[in-house]
Amino acid sequence: MIRLGIFGGGQLAQMLTQAAISLGVETVIFERSADSPAGRLTQAEIVGAWEDPTLLDLFASRCDLATLENEFVDATILAGLEARGLPIYPGALTLAMVQDKFFQKERIAAAGLRVPAFRRVSTPDDLLSVADDLGWPLLLKTRRNGYDGYGNVTLHGPSDVLPAWKRLTCGDSSLLAEAFVPFSRELAVMVVRGRTGEARAYPVVETVQRHHICHLVRAPAAIPANVAAEATALALAAVEAVGGVGIFGVELFALDNGQILFNEMAPRPHNSGHYTIEACVASQFENHLRAVIGWPLASTDLRTPAAVMVNLLGQRAGPVGPDALRAALDVPDTHLHLYGKRESRVGRKMGHVTALGATLAEAESLALRAADLVDI
Amino acid sequence: MIRLGIFGGGQLAQMLTQAAISLGVETVIFERSADSPAGRLTQAEIVGAWEDPTLLDLFASRCDLATLENEFVDATILAGLEARGLPIYPGALTLAMVQDKFFQKERIAAAGLRVPAFRRVSTPDDLLSVADDLGWPLLLKTRRNGYDGYGNVTLHGPSDVLPAWKRLTCGDSSLLAEAFVPFSRELAVMVVRGRTGEARAYPVVETVQRHHICHLVRAPAAIPANVAAEATALALAAVEAVGGVGIFGVELFALDNGQILFNEMAPRPHNSGHYTIEACVASQFENHLRAVIGWPLASTDLRTPAAVMVNLLGQRAGPVGPDALRAALDVPDTHLHLYGKRESRVGRKMGHVTALGATLAEAESLALRAADLVDI
Repeated sequence: MIRLGIFGGGQLAQMLTQAAISLGVETVIFERSADSPAGRLTQAEIVGAWEDPTLLDLFASRCDLATLENEFVDATILAGLEARGLPIYPGALTLAMVQDKFFQKERIAAAGLRVPAFRRVSTPDDLLSVADDLGWPLLLKTRRNGYDGYGNVTLHGPSDVLPAWKRLTCGDSSLLAEAFVPFSRELAVMVVRGRTGEARAYPVVETVQRHHICHLVRAPAAIPANVAAEATALALAAVEAVGGVGIFGVELFALDNGQILFNEMAPRPHNSGHYTIEACVASQFENHLRAVIGWPLASTDLRTPAAVMVNLLGQRAGPVGPDALRAALDVPDTHLHLYGKRESRVGRKMGHVTALGATLAEAESLALRAADLVDI
Repeated sequence: MIRLGIFGGGQLAQMLTQAAISLGVETVIFERSADSPAGRLTQAEIVGAWEDPTLLDLFASRCDLATLENEFVDATILAGLEARGLPIYPGALTLAMVQDKFFQKERIAAAGLRVPAFRRVSTPDDLLSVADDLGWPLLLKTRRNGYDGYGNVTLHGPSDVLPAWKRLTCGDSSLLAEAFVPFSRELAVMVVRGRTGEARAYPVVETVQRHHICHLVRAPAAIPANVAAEATALALAAVEAVGGVGIFGVELFALDNGQILFNEMAPRPHNSGHYTIEACVASQFENHLRAVIGWPLASTDLRTPAAVMVNLLGQRAGPVGPDALRAALDVPDTHLHLYGKRESRVGRKMGHVTALGATLAEAESLALRAADLVDI
C-alpha cells in the first residue's frame, strides 16, 4: 500500500483520507495538535510543529510521498524534504509562489493572465500613495496565512488605513493592496494537474460569500458558455503558471461585461469543490490522489444536472451534540458531511451539505432547507 | 459525536467507517487481529477474542451503541452487552435467528414465505433418509460460520455423503440439508429497517456466482416488474420476520416460472449491495448507520440507469503492490475500491469495481474491463 503523508489534519485531510481508503492509500497525518479530524482516522498520526526536525524525520520515514491540506506550511520545509528524496506535490517551488499572495499575483500577471491591479505596500504611507493611484475602496491583505476573511480588510478611505494596518501586520511583514473589482459574480474552478502536466478542469461554479466565508456554491454556474470557457481557460493557465501538481481551487471575478479576472488560488482541495463528491464522476479528493501519486486522472464531469453546496457554520459555542444532523437527514436528495470537530463556535466551518437536483433552484432549495435544520 | 462499536474490522467495517466519517460518527473496531482494514482507521481499535470479558468491558465502555460486520459473533455475547444497557443492532434475538441457517429457514418458513425444502440432519443416516424424501442433488451446509462457499457442499448421490459429512462437521454439530432448486437466476435485495420498523428496499439485483463467490452484480436485475415486486415483498417480509434493524442482504432464487424463493439472508452490509455506494442516492452503509442510530432512513433509489459491480479477487499470493490499480484507473466511469488487505491470496476478496452506464451491457463491459486490468 502507498503511504501518503499530509501536512494538516482538518476537514480537507479528512475527506482526502475517505477517498484514499478506497484506492488502497494509507494516510499519515502531521498536525500541530492531537485528535484532529483526520489524525483520528489513522494510527500514523504525528503531532507537533511542522518545523520540528525530529518530527520531520519521523514523517519522512513513514511516507512514500507527501501532500498538504493547507498552504500554511512553509515552502522551505517542503524543499528540505524534497532534497532528501521525498516526493511532495504540490512541490516547494509551487508552494513558494502560491502561499505568498503577492508572489502569486506577480506570477499570474507575468503569465499574461488578467488580475486586478495590485501593489506590495510596506508602510501606511505606501498604502496612501497606492490609493492615489488605484482609488478607493481598496483591499488590504496579509500576504500569507489568510483564510475565510481573516487577513483581509476593505478600506473605504484614508481614515481606515491605520486601524487596518495595525490589525493585519505583526510589524515586520509587508502587505498586499488590491484595487476593488466591481464584480457581478464570483466564480471558481477546480483544476487537477498531473505530474506530467496533463490537466482537467471541473465545471465552473458560482460561489456566494457571506461575511467573507463561502456560504453557497452553485454547480454549474448559470453563465453563458463563452464566459465559462474563458474562466476554464484562465484557471487551467493559472495552475500551469505555478507548475501545480494536484488539485487547485482557482477563484475568479466575473464582471458585468463578461470579462474574467483571476482573484486567487489555493494549492489544495477547496471548499468550492466539495460538491464534486456526489455531483461529479470523480471527486476533487480522488483526482488529487491520482494526480500526486502519478496515476491517470479521472473524469471531472457532472453526474447530475445541478448541485448546490451550502456550508454548515457553527451557530453557538459548545460540543457537537449526537443529534446535530437528525432533522436535516429527513431532507431528500441531500448529502450531509460533518468535519469531526468536537467543539462548535459561532461561524466555524463544521460541515457542509450538497443537494442534487434537476435544476439549480431545486437543489438550492433542498440544500438550504437541510442546512437550516442542522443544529450545531 | 456518536461512538459506534463494530464487531469485525474487515472491508464491510471499512466501508461503514468511510460512511460514518461524513455523518460525524466515530467507529470503535473490535477485531481478532491487529491492523485490520477498519481497525487501522481508528485509534480506538480493540484487538482480541470477542469472548474475552475484559475486552468486552473495554468495548462497551468506549461505545454509545454497537453493530456487527459479520454474523460470526455469538448471539449470547450480544445478549450480555444488551443486558448491561448497550444498544446493539441488529439485536441478539435477531442474530440468534439468523446466524444459524436452520433456525433462519425455520423462521422464514414460519412467516409463510417460500423457501426450498430443508431439514436438520444429525447423522449421515439422517441425510440418506432426507435424500429419499427430497431427492438428489442435495445441498449440505454447516448451520453457522459459512461464507463464500466455505461450509457448503452439493451432493449428487449416496457416495458423496460421508466425505461431505467429514468435511463439514467438527463432530458435534448438526447440519442443514436443502433440496436443490433449479433456479434460472439468483437475485438479491438489500433491505434497511429502522428501530421502529420502517423499512426500505433497494432495487432487486441479479447476482452471478463463480466458484461459490459473488463474481458480478447487475443493478437493476433485468426481470419483469411483477417478479421484481414479488422479490422486494419477500425480502421486506423476511427482514421483518426476524425483527431486523439495520441493513440486511437477502438472497433469492428466481425460477423459470417467475416464482421467487428465499435462499438466505445476512444481517449486515452485503457484497450484493456494494453497487449502492455510487449508484444509489444513499449507500447501504449510510442507511445502515441511519437505521441503527435511529435516524431517518434515506432514499434507496438508483441515481443511474444501470450499474454493474465486479469483485476483485486475488490472482496470486503476496503483498499488494502500490500500482495494483494503475492500469484499471484509466477505464472511464468506473469506481475502484480496495479493501486494505496487505496480502493477496488466490480467490481472496481484495476489492471491487462498480461501473455506471446507460445500459447494463455498457456498465458490465466497463466493469469487466477494469477488473481485468487490476493487478493484485
